[in-house]
Amino acid sequence: MEAPLSAGPGTPTRTPAADPDAPGELSGRPLPDLVDAVERALRTFFTTRRPLVRDLGPVFEEAAAALEHFVLRGGKRTRPAFAWTGWLGAGGDPAAPEAAAVLTACAALELVQACALIHDDIIDSSRTRRGYPTVHVDYERRHRDRGWAGESEHFGVGAGILIGDLALAWADDMVHAAGLRPDQLARFAEVWAGMRTEVLGGQLLDISGVAGADESVAAALRINRYKTAAYTVERPLHLGAAIADADPELIAAYRTFGTDIGIAFQLRDDLLGVFGDPAVTGKPSGDDLREGKRTVLLAAALERADATNPAAAALLREGIGTDLSQDQVERLRGVLIELGAVHEVERRITELTDRGLAAMQASSAAPAAKQRLRAMALAATRRAA
Amino acid sequence: MEAPLSAGPGTPTRTPAADPDAPGELSGRPLPDLVDAVERALRTFFTTRRPLVRDLGPVFEEAAAALEHFVLRGGKRTRPAFAWTGWLGAGGDPAAPEAAAVLTACAALELVQACALIHDDIIDSSRTRRGYPTVHVDYERRHRDRGWAGESEHFGVGAGILIGDLALAWADDMVHAAGLRPDQLARFAEVWAGMRTEVLGGQLLDISGVAGADESVAAALRINRYKTAAYTVERPLHLGAAIADADPELIAAYRTFGTDIGIAFQLRDDLLGVFGDPAVTGKPSGDDLREGKRTVLLAAALERADATNPAAAALLREGIGTDLSQDQVERLRGVLIELGAVHEVERRITELTDRGLAAMQASSAAPAAKQRLRAMALAATRRAA
Repeated sequence: MEAPLSAGPGTPTRTPAADPDAPGELSGRPLPDLVDAVERALRTFFTTRRPLVRDLGPVFEEAAAALEHFVLRGGKRTRPAFAWTGWLGAGGDPAAPEAAAVLTACAALELVQACALIHDDIIDSSRTRRGYPTVHVDYERRHRDRGWAGESEHFGVGAGILIGDLALAWADDMVHAAGLRPDQLARFAEVWAGMRTEVLGGQLLDISGVAGADESVAAALRINRYKTAAYTVERPLHLGAAIADADPELIAAYRTFGTDIGIAFQLRDDLLGVFGDPAVTGKPSGDDLREGKRTVLLAAALERADATNPAAAALLREGIGTDLSQDQVERLRGVLIELGAVHEVERRITELTDRGLAAMQASSAAPAAKQRLRAMALAATRRAA
Repeated sequence: MEAPLSAGPGTPTRTPAADPDAPGELSGRPLPDLVDAVERALRTFFTTRRPLVRDLGPVFEEAAAALEHFVLRGGKRTRPAFAWTGWLGAGGDPAAPEAAAVLTACAALELVQACALIHDDIIDSSRTRRGYPTVHVDYERRHRDRGWAGESEHFGVGAGILIGDLALAWADDMVHAAGLRPDQLARFAEVWAGMRTEVLGGQLLDISGVAGADESVAAALRINRYKTAAYTVERPLHLGAAIADADPELIAAYRTFGTDIGIAFQLRDDLLGVFGDPAVTGKPSGDDLREGKRTVLLAAALERADATNPAAAALLREGIGTDLSQDQVERLRGVLIELGAVHEVERRITELTDRGLAAMQASSAAPAAKQRLRAMALAATRRAA
């Protein structure tokens, strides 16, 4: 099923293994060689920072090491994979001398993601990620273990903010040091700018939506568009296309595919957040209902309930975002199904996936890249975890 | 006394007015035309972001507007002034067509500074800045006023983190969109990378120093080096030199000047934080003692007291960082003077200033820039507020 794409510059293609990663990341089964190549590029970049880091002394060396561990500890490297595949699809040649520079620029997306995750974990008050303490919690513990003055929790948040900032700054530095030609860099920078503004905007919409409880389907779709689709699929593909100087038609096809598949992925994720098997998703069953996440699923249910079933609407509004028992979760699940909201979301996923795949199919992308993107899209929108 | 430098591309020089700004910012009396030109460049950049911001909807438009107000509400534009003067001193011609691009790249430093201040205010739990609520407090209030769900304080912190991130990302975007030539941009980017890592490193050292109470003079000097000197003077001058492709000797002279004057400025600031007249500094008298700031002044006093006067050492360690009465502040001031710490810091300021000025004097910098930098250095290290 996997497309025979070369996964990294000059590396042979292997059959990918099953994906053991935590849920919540969009990907087809990743190409292990590409994952390796991305991690090598990141490791090389961290090595180039060492002299500067050493000048700043041991406290900063510890912080840079914390960031390096965070970035290299795992992840599917989804965004670099889309960017790299976007470049290949637009005619990029993995055997060309410039391929290493392109791969490094694509790998820098992982540092933007590191900032997003580190800061998000502070914003969401998350204590663990992928089985490890989050960065701010790690620093909270260091503070406590060393018996330092002041409040450990506040210190941890401060350190987490600064380490996230460092990741964001280093993402740019990695792009600049990648070795792209000036014309490639100029095209890349414009898309990169759009992407970062969109993801930060999406996060702001998200926290404002949760707090302000905008219940509309439109609001939930807008968050999906910017926080997930643009940032995870659309703009990474666009970045690859920009490096390759792709024609506007291919870029338009990539962006349609990226937006549609990215949103469909998020809708699938929302369904799994309510109906997923905890043994497969790794999250407690019904967790999204307890967290009060403003999903399209919930918005669709509320719109339907308000029109036809005020008792169901009240039940949803009273229960969502509270510490629900397993029985209550079961009951709300039943309500979501009976209202037709689950059916509506499934229909949207199908429509978006079909439209995205059709746009890609009709495009001028290289056949191998098309196949790979199709496989990634299907894995992301049909997955059970 | 002011050097007859053209302050902005193609703008005539005016005699600068007295500086009405809050303390804590290094500057000679700023050139008003340069301040105007920097603000025009920032305003233009914000205008270019509008279409993207509008796409993201009203919640994000509000956040972008909050950032724009924060950046344009005031400030001496110290870092752009040093960068611009560094460029002029290295042969940059303010009448050349490229001057507008150079000024825009220099002005982008204000967006890095916006991120630093917005995130610092969260880390320091500061509620006001320049008489306005800090960004996270502003968002805390919006949350409360709108009766949104969740904890207002936590929401404010989340919004502040994201708006600071946006400033950091936009700083880069502004550099990329400035219109520098590829060779200028490549040289600029390397120094820019060093500067951002240094300021984030300096902030991390600072919070770790306060929490871990590293009492050494060396630790305090290291924080001054990176958090203040490199970020405020040395690297901005270096950025200007890099755009102009200055020779290594001039860059070395700029860096010596920048480090020495930057640290001397911070030492003066530390003295004012303990001995400054509240009517002039705008801060409560002795504020740094109450906050427990790990200054060179305090470190020098503790080193001296440990060697000669254990009672004074105990008095300092018991008092620093506590809610001191005005009498206690007076008493600690007397101890700092008696121990010779004030004298030592004054001596350091003189030595650093002399060395920095000598390096600049002996350099190949353009005479008008030398004069201007000398005036900025003296204003920064001799000031009363």
